[in-house]
Amino acid sequence: MSGLSLGYEVAATDGAARRGRLTTAHGSVNTPAFMTVGTAGTVKGLTCEQVAASGAEIVLGNTYHLMLRPGAERVAQLGGLHKFMNWPGPILTDSGGFQVMSLEALRKITEDGVTFRSHLDGTLHALTPERAMEIQELLDADVTMVLDECTRFPASESVARESMERSMRWAARCKAAFTARPGYGLFGIVQGSVYPALRQVSAEALKEIDFDGYAIGGLAVGEGQSAMFETLDTTIPHLPAERPRYLMGVGKPADIVGAVRRGIDMFDCVLPTRSGRTGQAFTRRAVLNLMNARHRDDPRPLDPDCPCPSCADYSRAYLHHLFKAKEMLGPILLSRHNLHYYQQLMAGLRGAIAAGRLEDFIADFERQQAEGDIAAP
Amino acid sequence: MSGLSLGYEVAATDGAARRGRLTTAHGSVNTPAFMTVGTAGTVKGLTCEQVAASGAEIVLGNTYHLMLRPGAERVAQLGGLHKFMNWPGPILTDSGGFQVMSLEALRKITEDGVTFRSHLDGTLHALTPERAMEIQELLDADVTMVLDECTRFPASESVARESMERSMRWAARCKAAFTARPGYGLFGIVQGSVYPALRQVSAEALKEIDFDGYAIGGLAVGEGQSAMFETLDTTIPHLPAERPRYLMGVGKPADIVGAVRRGIDMFDCVLPTRSGRTGQAFTRRAVLNLMNARHRDDPRPLDPDCPCPSCADYSRAYLHHLFKAKEMLGPILLSRHNLHYYQQLMAGLRGAIAAGRLEDFIADFERQQAEGDIAAP
Repeated sequence: MSGLSLGYEVAATDGAARRGRLTTAHGSVNTPAFMTVGTAGTVKGLTCEQVAASGAEIVLGNTYHLMLRPGAERVAQLGGLHKFMNWPGPILTDSGGFQVMSLEALRKITEDGVTFRSHLDGTLHALTPERAMEIQELLDADVTMVLDECTRFPASESVARESMERSMRWAARCKAAFTARPGYGLFGIVQGSVYPALRQVSAEALKEIDFDGYAIGGLAVGEGQSAMFETLDTTIPHLPAERPRYLMGVGKPADIVGAVRRGIDMFDCVLPTRSGRTGQAFTRRAVLNLMNARHRDDPRPLDPDCPCPSCADYSRAYLHHLFKAKEMLGPILLSRHNLHYYQQLMAGLRGAIAAGRLEDFIADFERQQAEGDIAAP
Repeated sequence: MSGLSLGYEVAATDGAARRGRLTTAHGSVNTPAFMTVGTAGTVKGLTCEQVAASGAEIVLGNTYHLMLRPGAERVAQLGGLHKFMNWPGPILTDSGGFQVMSLEALRKITEDGVTFRSHLDGTLHALTPERAMEIQELLDADVTMVLDECTRFPASESVARESMERSMRWAARCKAAFTARPGYGLFGIVQGSVYPALRQVSAEALKEIDFDGYAIGGLAVGEGQSAMFETLDTTIPHLPAERPRYLMGVGKPADIVGAVRRGIDMFDCVLPTRSGRTGQAFTRRAVLNLMNARHRDDPRPLDPDCPCPSCADYSRAYLHHLFKAKEMLGPILLSRHNLHYYQQLMAGLRGAIAAGRLEDFIADFERQQAEGDIAAP
């Protein structure tokens, strides 16, 4: 990479998997990395100190939410998103394409871009490739994402092709509009639904434009894990080995493990925090539902082997009580635990790749998941 | 005090105000003290580490809430309330009288005690003086409160007398049922509404029974600050100087300052956390409403002189954004700030009493409050 953008280097590989490091204007990120989602300028329920303590090195903000509230110009005036939300480390911003597409009846796509009505107050807004770049620069994102159309699933091949081709034209406009600066970079997004030929065309088009990293979009939208993995298998070979690869919106722990094995370097997902808010806890052996009465008298932590403060300090019985009583501390403690779980998983994957024993790690992971929760006391 | 109960010593006085220390089985508490409210086994929105970092030395649990959910026997089985909620320091438990009385149509009071329907599921429950002692022992409260009837306001003198006299009979039953243990103590509660003669009778009756501390109940229920202060002025002289005095459910900062000046040692109130959840922030110069649009572009902290992490790390503009976006972090950061504000106020009062300059401190406090918020940038 030139000194005018992001740094990325691969330190070790194990099969297709890579152990690397992304260097940005606000610090570096060890990969494979899970990016904690802070949609509206906050990781829901947690202070940035708690997020950092989980092992997170990069958080994700969202153009769509932040352009509507508090507004990108306001964030810039207040010193940028890092200062605004008190996260001094790297930030990646989603371009807003995914959220705008999901508005369905409220948006209209043309070649120029997309117009939509705010889900907050119904006001009319426009997002073009050029405006998406401007907003993300105002937010001061270390990693900017191109504006794309996240093709809905399922889509016929002709619909998927038309959508992907427009996204590629938008990607070229994004690249032209993006301001190159040291430590800042722009990622392209491969589309093409589950059609290998379209994914290849998309990847080649993006390589031709030349991005600092390559995301795979339009997955984790209902196609299922095997279709997702097949798409990765046919897409990744067309991506340049020397640039980071980001699988957007993924996913469950098993999705991440399978994607890392296939050569993905970056992930983001709301699952750890969203699940945490509804009483779901990820552990190495099971996903626990803390609303379940079986935890009512259980003095044990979520996971006796988890070093996170939620497991060190609190019993399942207490967490169950908090969720039954609808106390805010329940979502807080479970979101924190889940983020620790995800970061521990990523640290384990990175260590395994560096040691050349990823297959052993995955076998252990799958065996523990198959065992199910530890027996009741 | 005998070694079989709580320790309490007065280290300094300034006028009627006292600088003291309460010693319990789980540590000591500098007085005058503000007790942070953790009604249902959690200070809403905060971890116990965050509560302790605010300067809090004692938290309050609630018999009514905890007996219904998760149940006192369950808490005992799980190791007591300290372990359950991860608060290793002193805990005072309210007896449940105040909450049960507020159930109105759902409760029935007899000489034996009170029967009521749970606000959670309509099930029938009974609370007697003896059961209130048993529950608080199961919870492992360092400071247990007698079961009393919080007389409603306004009440005629005859109604207030009848209610107070029953509370005094219940107080004697509580004392008889309470298990004395080193580091654990039982507080009586003075009732009598705003009638000085009744307050005196109540105080004398409690002294005769002999408690480890004396609370003043039935205030902050709508009588107004001047009636509250008048009641303190006529009641406190009848309380023993060598025991701690606790003004229940109070209050606003100015209420606390005025009550400390009159010789009160302990307070509890939901105001800092409840206000924090609705966007209200206490500062030395004003109560701020973070929902107000005037904070939208304000890069300053709530209070530039406040050392709390919410003020060190976040702007008013960010806090405004969090409340507008209904993000959990808004209530978290404001509750944390408000607890810090209250604890700083108590530390200031304690230091002023020890230095013999309480009147100067109060004059400064009142001057700052009168000045109003710092000017906009």
